[in-house]
Amino acid sequence: MTSTPLFMPPYYAVIFTSLLPEHSEEYGETSNEIYELAQGRPGFLGVDSVRDAGGQGATISYWRTEDDVTNFRKLATHRHAQHRGRVTFYERYEVRVAKVEKEYAWKRKEDGVGEYDKK
Amino acid sequence: MTSTPLFMPPYYAVIFTSLLPEHSEEYGETSNEIYELAQGRPGFLGVDSVRDAGGQGATISYWRTEDDVTNFRKLATHRHAQHRGRVTFYERYEVRVAKVEKEYAWKRKEDGVGEYDKK
Repeated sequence: MTSTPLFMPPYYAVIFTSLLPEHSEEYGETSNEIYELAQGRPGFLGVDSVRDAGGQGATISYWRTEDDVTNFRKLATHRHAQHRGRVTFYERYEVRVAKVEKEYAWKRKEDGVGEYDKK
Repeated sequence: MTSTPLFMPPYYAVIFTSLLPEHSEEYGETSNEIYELAQGRPGFLGVDSVRDAGGQGATISYWRTEDDVTNFRKLATHRHAQHRGRVTFYERYEVRVAKVEKEYAWKRKEDGVGEYDKK
């Protein structure tokens, strides 16, 4: 997972939760392709991605506007990867498109007390 | 991670991403306490939670309204757990409150093709 910084709301989060029964090299490649594709797109802010040993995963990508999300979804290459995901990789997945209205962050500092940030 | 069903938008998602340097029994207990607390609250719809071996985690809880989110945050016991989280457990965390506007799900069926759902 990248350590995603705070972005200034409002912006969009795409919450992708999934179950991946087994990790394959092909999955890793497809996953990297989508990430690289996203990075080059207008409005892409960042991504958080976690998968546990049991194959449960959550990937949240952050975008400036709803149009940025829609345009990324429509990309032919992304659609192709989605199709491969359905046919090849996942047992199930859910996608939620959400407008981020508030955000907070906390980070440990050397004094052990930490710093609190709100936007 | 629970297999979260689809809920009818609009509703709210609280996206909690964090780095937990080491897992402790006390963390597990606190985590369970918060989950049980959430389950009994008005407007609680469900939760997805994943943490990988490196301690990166993403927990997304789902709530019917923004007020339900705010009321849960204000709960004294929850605040207490937040405080313990800052002092004891986390290296960093981010919280994002987002309004879910669209959702899609896909699930593999016995025929291997799967079923697509949109709400």
